[in-house]
Order: sequence, then C-alpha cells, then structure tokens
Amino acid sequence: MRTERRLFLADGPKAVEGALAVPGCVVEVFATPAAAQQHDVLLGTAPVTLVDERAMSSLSDSVTPAGLVAVCRFLDNERIPTPLLMTICADVRDPGNAGTVIRTSDAAGADCVVLAGDSVDPYNPKTVRASVGSLFHVPIEVERDAATAVRRAQIAGLTVLAADGEGEVDLFAADELLTRPTAWLFGNEAWGLPPELAELADHRVRIPILGAAESLNLATAAAVCLYASARAMMNV
Amino acid sequence: MRTERRLFLADGPKAVEGALAVPGCVVEVFATPAAAQQHDVLLGTAPVTLVDERAMSSLSDSVTPAGLVAVCRFLDNERIPTPLLMTICADVRDPGNAGTVIRTSDAAGADCVVLAGDSVDPYNPKTVRASVGSLFHVPIEVERDAATAVRRAQIAGLTVLAADGEGEVDLFAADELLTRPTAWLFGNEAWGLPPELAELADHRVRIPILGAAESLNLATAAAVCLYASARAMMNV
Repeated sequence: MRTERRLFLADGPKAVEGALAVPGCVVEVFATPAAAQQHDVLLGTAPVTLVDERAMSSLSDSVTPAGLVAVCRFLDNERIPTPLLMTICADVRDPGNAGTVIRTSDAAGADCVVLAGDSVDPYNPKTVRASVGSLFHVPIEVERDAATAVRRAQIAGLTVLAADGEGEVDLFAADELLTRPTAWLFGNEAWGLPPELAELADHRVRIPILGAAESLNLATAAAVCLYASARAMMNV
Repeated sequence: MRTERRLFLADGPKAVEGALAVPGCVVEVFATPAAAQQHDVLLGTAPVTLVDERAMSSLSDSVTPAGLVAVCRFLDNERIPTPLLMTICADVRDPGNAGTVIRTSDAAGADCVVLAGDSVDPYNPKTVRASVGSLFHVPIEVERDAATAVRRAQIAGLTVLAADGEGEVDLFAADELLTRPTAWLFGNEAWGLPPELAELADHRVRIPILGAAESLNLATAAAVCLYASARAMMNV
C-alpha cells in the first residue's frame, strides 16, 4: 500500500518540520488540537486536519505520539553531481540503525546516503523517526545490488572505504586518505560486510579498539568514520 | 528482587563470555542443549543447567534468544586509581543507549563509566545486552547526584568536558585539551545536559554539525567525542 501510493508518514515535530521544508512533499498533516496549537508557527499554512488522541495513536507507531504526523510524498532524491562524502549501507536491516546513520551522515556533511543490498526501506516509520528530519535533508538512494552501489561511487570519483574491523588501514593514521572524496561502506549490524564486497572497496579501514570490546555497533562506528572524514576534509 | 539478591542476567554468548572472564561473577549458566553444544569451549567448566527452549524464552527478554543466559553477581567495580579517560552519563534513561555508551567507552579505552543522576540501572537486561560484554570489561559506577560525579572526576585530576551542542569549544580544534586526562559528560537523550550541570564542567565542547541535522543522538555523539580523545591521547 505504502509503495503503491508512494506516500509515507513523518511522525513528530522534527520530522514534520523537515518534510514541510521540502517543497511539494507534504500532502496533509494530521494533528491533535493541542499539538496544532503548540506547533502553530511550524505548521504555518500547511494543510492540517485535526484528529483526536485516539485517531492519532492509530496513525503513529510511536509509544508516546507527539500529536503531529505528516503524510508525505516519496522524496525525489537527486544525487548531487560531485559528492565529496557519501555513505553506503549494505544490508543494514534495523530501521533505527538506518535512521541514525542517515542522521549522522547529515550531521557530518554527507551529500548522499545509499541504502544498498538488502537494507531496510528508508520510508519505514522507525527509520524516518530515527533520522529526526535528516531523511528530508540528505538525498537517499536505494540500490538493490550493493556491488553496483560501490562501483557507481568509484565511477563518480569517490574513494570507497569499507569500515572493517580487520581492515588493513588504521583510521587514526588515514588522514591523507580521508581528505579524498570518500564513500564509506558499512555492513550489516550483526555480520558486517561480506568479504567479496569489502574487497571491492579501495581500502578497508579499521577503527582502533583500545579496550576489551570486540567491536563497535554500526551507528557508532559510522559516526566515528564519518566524523574522521569531516575533520580531515576541513583541515585541508 | 534483582536488587535484593544482587544478581542479574547476562543474555547471549558475548555477555556470558564477558561474565565468565570475571572471577566469581557467574553463579550459574542456563543453556538450551543446542546452545550448550555450540558454545562448549566458551562454557568450559562453568556450572551449566540445561533448559528447554520454552524455559529459555522466559529467562531471556530477547526476541530471538541465543539459548545462553548467565546468572551473575553484581560486579565489584573498583575504579582504577589514576583514570585517563572516563565517561559520565547524566540522566541517560534508555537502556540500549546506556549499553551502547558502555560498549563505546570500552572500545575507546575508557577506564570507567559513571551512570549519574537519574540514569538507567546498569544491570537492566537491555543495557547488559547492548553493552555486548563491555559491562564486564569497564568498571561501572552509579552516582545518584550528577554534580557529585563531576566534582569527583575533577578531584581525581580529570578535566571534565561536557558534550554540548552550544559548547564554546569546537571538538575539531580541541586536540591540546583532549590530550589531558578527561571525563566526558553526556546528558539525557532528549533534553541534553541541564545548564547548571554543564556549567560545572571545565569546558563545554560542541561537535561541529556540517549539514542540516540539529544534533547527533547520544550514543553517536559519545562515540565521536570518546574517539576524538582516544586519538588525541595516542598522538601525544
């Protein structure tokens, strides 16, 4: 249904604010009277339909609905022609993780996020919510074949760096590498990157583990890598 | 009950492995026959009681139990005398976030994590699980008064850096500061640090936001800050 109609729900004030900033994105906003009043500046001239708390609970899958849900058109995610920083998620299945990676990519200044392979739908309500509006800030692409996503990034002139606990490059000693236009490649939250996909990357980069932890979780590893790139690029 | 008996559950092979590495920690391991066989090397001479899948489901609050749960004694979290890197969480309420911050602190080489103020119980099953064994690697302290936690860190010779989106110090320009023995202070996932607590810190440090995101989530912000410290300290 969601796919046929090419519509999705943005739940909560941050997401609704993000959606309203994209021209033509919002079809309709459902709001409880209290939320409509609280957020009247944000809502401005948006087409608002007032609903009661009970109808709101059925619209929102949040445990504590904020009383504000926008029905949005699928985004027209045009990739910028010369990206400098990109995120490729391969087989990222948890919607909260995907949303957090989108939010972090936005914060770190990424130009694009590709949900590749068997990754979660970007319009999954939990992904939209975890992105806290960033779904509306950063172009998102879906590419069913992860190897194609890697090759397309390389063709676009990006150095593809696979985040890999066994990688041959130490993130702390990679500043020269990180100043290049970069696509970071992140794997599944449980089993990481398949070796044949990691091999397609130009380099495999490991985050140093200084304590007894075996690894970082996906979203925190992505934050460390993307911010290492942002910092290296700013220092050029 | 959990508090009275000073026992908690470590769920899944990583957590059980971490618990077994702490002398005297594990009272008993419950395992399904399949899991006991699969993890026989890990279990070694541990006191194992075999249970069926149904009993395992009632022990584990995981959606997909791994078939292995250890009953553990509360940890004797002796703080090391001269910590170089410490994490203080003030009012961190989400157990998954707290566990992820503990895991990230471990990976970044932190000597201690303080769950301060109204933070979640470190022995919450979701915290234990999200820490993926790191609860057993890093000393965890609980301090109900967050201001006391900050002052204790300062008395121990640590520079307290509050992670604060409005902070006066740019993380990317803080390397000299980051080489000092540091306690990072992180606030609640929704409302951040109360101003009066941030004021107690020696400095307030902001992570640069390069895109349109308003902020990072707690666990990713903690990862960026802790790894910035780890890197600066390694480069001394």
